[in-house]
Amino acid sequence: MTENKIPLQTISRSELRQLVRTQLQMLLEQNNLEGAKALLVPVQPVDIAEAIEGLPEAMQVIAFRLLSKAEAIEVYEYLDSSVQQSLIEEFKRQEVIDIVDKMSPDDRVRLFDELPAKVVRRLLEQLSPKERQATAQLLGYEPDTAGRIMTPEYISLKETVTIGETLERIRSLAKATEMIYYLYVTDAARRLTGIVSLRDLVISSPERTLGEIMTRDVVYVHTGTDQEEVARLIQRYDFLAVPIVDREQRLVGIVTVDDVIDILEEETTEDIYALGGGVQSGGDNYFQTDLLTVARKRVVWLFVLLLTNSVTATIISSQEVLLQRVVALAAFIPLLTGTGGNVGAQSSTVVIRGLNTDELKDLGVGQVVFREARAGALLGTILGVVATLWAYILVQDGNFLAPFSMYSFFIALSVGLSLIAIAILASIAGSALPFLFRSIGFDPALMSAPFITTAVDVLGVLIYFNIARVILKL
Amino acid sequence: MTENKIPLQTISRSELRQLVRTQLQMLLEQNNLEGAKALLVPVQPVDIAEAIEGLPEAMQVIAFRLLSKAEAIEVYEYLDSSVQQSLIEEFKRQEVIDIVDKMSPDDRVRLFDELPAKVVRRLLEQLSPKERQATAQLLGYEPDTAGRIMTPEYISLKETVTIGETLERIRSLAKATEMIYYLYVTDAARRLTGIVSLRDLVISSPERTLGEIMTRDVVYVHTGTDQEEVARLIQRYDFLAVPIVDREQRLVGIVTVDDVIDILEEETTEDIYALGGGVQSGGDNYFQTDLLTVARKRVVWLFVLLLTNSVTATIISSQEVLLQRVVALAAFIPLLTGTGGNVGAQSSTVVIRGLNTDELKDLGVGQVVFREARAGALLGTILGVVATLWAYILVQDGNFLAPFSMYSFFIALSVGLSLIAIAILASIAGSALPFLFRSIGFDPALMSAPFITTAVDVLGVLIYFNIARVILKL
Repeated sequence: MTENKIPLQTISRSELRQLVRTQLQMLLEQNNLEGAKALLVPVQPVDIAEAIEGLPEAMQVIAFRLLSKAEAIEVYEYLDSSVQQSLIEEFKRQEVIDIVDKMSPDDRVRLFDELPAKVVRRLLEQLSPKERQATAQLLGYEPDTAGRIMTPEYISLKETVTIGETLERIRSLAKATEMIYYLYVTDAARRLTGIVSLRDLVISSPERTLGEIMTRDVVYVHTGTDQEEVARLIQRYDFLAVPIVDREQRLVGIVTVDDVIDILEEETTEDIYALGGGVQSGGDNYFQTDLLTVARKRVVWLFVLLLTNSVTATIISSQEVLLQRVVALAAFIPLLTGTGGNVGAQSSTVVIRGLNTDELKDLGVGQVVFREARAGALLGTILGVVATLWAYILVQDGNFLAPFSMYSFFIALSVGLSLIAIAILASIAGSALPFLFRSIGFDPALMSAPFITTAVDVLGVLIYFNIARVILKL
Repeated sequence: MTENKIPLQTISRSELRQLVRTQLQMLLEQNNLEGAKALLVPVQPVDIAEAIEGLPEAMQVIAFRLLSKAEAIEVYEYLDSSVQQSLIEEFKRQEVIDIVDKMSPDDRVRLFDELPAKVVRRLLEQLSPKERQATAQLLGYEPDTAGRIMTPEYISLKETVTIGETLERIRSLAKATEMIYYLYVTDAARRLTGIVSLRDLVISSPERTLGEIMTRDVVYVHTGTDQEEVARLIQRYDFLAVPIVDREQRLVGIVTVDDVIDILEEETTEDIYALGGGVQSGGDNYFQTDLLTVARKRVVWLFVLLLTNSVTATIISSQEVLLQRVVALAAFIPLLTGTGGNVGAQSSTVVIRGLNTDELKDLGVGQVVFREARAGALLGTILGVVATLWAYILVQDGNFLAPFSMYSFFIALSVGLSLIAIAILASIAGSALPFLFRSIGFDPALMSAPFITTAVDVLGVLIYFNIARVILKL
């Protein structure tokens, strides 16, 4: 948490950031270090971090060394992990220790997660004993759990302490502690017994004890809880922080609301990437990943799709005799599979988003699938009528004045009826598969699309050919 | 903001919520109002709201009336707007006034946004003058701006006030004010001149004045600023709240971090819906919207796609002579358009997400598009080689032992080469179109997909037929 600072009265924040970035590079190119230093004085750490990220790599270290020690640490915490890494390589040994030792434990763990194991081991050895212990403890928890993302920097006191003593204590700790708006009360065994907000403190008389004013029923989570669940909890109850306890109910850390926003954003990016054609997100910035890794992250889904399409192609090939006789049928295959795929994508999108937010709440699988099937039938009917008309005109070569052709109409009718059937099929697949994947422990966002496409393409083409065969009596 | 409360030591939160919901309904069905009341005493308002939402409509009013006045207001604020509305219709006139008058102004405005204008006017008239004025002012700002979502409940003081006096003041105001962790300092004209955090207050000696300890350079936004920009600002700087000023720099409200999480989530749902096949999101819960509205929200994109596919179908139709001669070509059309569409979707997904978060940062359009084009070429080549092999086998009817056929190979080669061209085309369209739509003021998430599909389908089929024509010398 930081307090508000710095102005930008006349220009917008993004303009200001842009300005700082270009000015900084110019001054460094002119070797005007004093000027660069002066430029950065009124700028927020997060904006300095962004300006440094925008510099050519060789200049990043120089810019970073302009900062005061205290500021350097804060700026370093805001840097992208790739820049953090390249800076570590440039730093002298003592610089590294100075910075890494003073970082917040949660930010330090995030950095260590990205560094090679060998470097982490060496850094750990060189940390001060207190910091080393805190870090090693956090690193012991599974990735993406409350334990891994929490910070051990909180204020905890005993029930018998008075409000006056507590305020004294806060005065001495406020500088070193990220979150002072909640104070935690623990018993002799360090078990969490209550919580007092700074709000409660300032409105109570100084002689009372924490035990008298604390809230005893505390919402907390365990170290092993998934980070997204922690985020949702804080979001749901509008907390500023939530305490984390170990298996013996001992308080070991807190997760604060500012981290929650980033966690939710990261999880959402993962979902969006997965939905948008199966791009796998490793939590890294896509635009700073090398091209081969990008290709690797994208090619899996494309191969699945190629396989699906090969099956479809095989089915179409097997109908060569039919197609040879009624070549017009081929023209509508992309229309049917394309529309079906889209109806299915719509259904799966709303269901997957509903599963990941609070929106689906207590609706059952059956209810949702039935509802989507009806929506699919409705949409399919609307689209089917239009498609039948368009198909008829197209088969007639756009000749509106030609006499009515029963044959063309039957082709068009096959298209329209298939579209209705495919829309219903796609809606059911699109809404049911996310539930299925979730129940067997897969990520619905990543798994659903390929299977929906397969179902719609393969079954869709089969439906189409069979309807055409019946209607055209072939 | 609420303080932490209530336990759930042995069972998980979601199990607890489920339990409260079913218990409440059972007790109400048995007409055991005392039991129901006792059940709800230790439950958090947000959980009570959810339990009430899960009840049959007739029971919702009964359950709601079990609550104490103070609790009723908080629970009401957490209810879905559809339930808020149906409750308003059930309430007696005085009940409505009692609740609506005591709601936070920002929650009240959110409710009024959903109610019919006539009801809003009647309710406004019946509010107490102070609340009426506050609400009318908020309602005067454009939807989705800082002014519309802010709360006017903050603490503002003059520079000359001492820390001791301020703490006194906070003691009297803490109950009525949502956010007391930041105090705002204004001049005689109510212009914002500084900010003091409760942290600053408790660590300073009581004789000093706010003017001495306040931070003068305050980050603030204007009433007309887009809500998403406000949210991003708070996220970026890890603030708990940001002050909102009017055109004359006068402080008029604050936006708090708990609202920010909901805003970001709402905006993300909009993007995900748009990306997932053009579902329009009106900010309402999709699963509580009636089927006709759902169809309306989904049918637009489907029609665009149908139109696109009709153009594709027309192109395929126009090649009837070619297809009649080489019917095998038809089998690969879905494979080419499908894969192309997916490559394009991948590119547009990462670019759109990058535009909406901080990830794209200072990369230019040219850089991004060139990068995606290279990724497309790489992916297209990998897929093209595989597709050529598969296509050859398929055209040979899966007969591996048949003698090598130049003709089959040429068909397969047409497929492979087309796939490379289409993948590059799709990557360029997928990465460039979001920038284009953004620059002309459209929503990239909603607009990109149809145009990418059109480009890939129509141009893709044309590319395919022309490559085949050249290679097969037709």
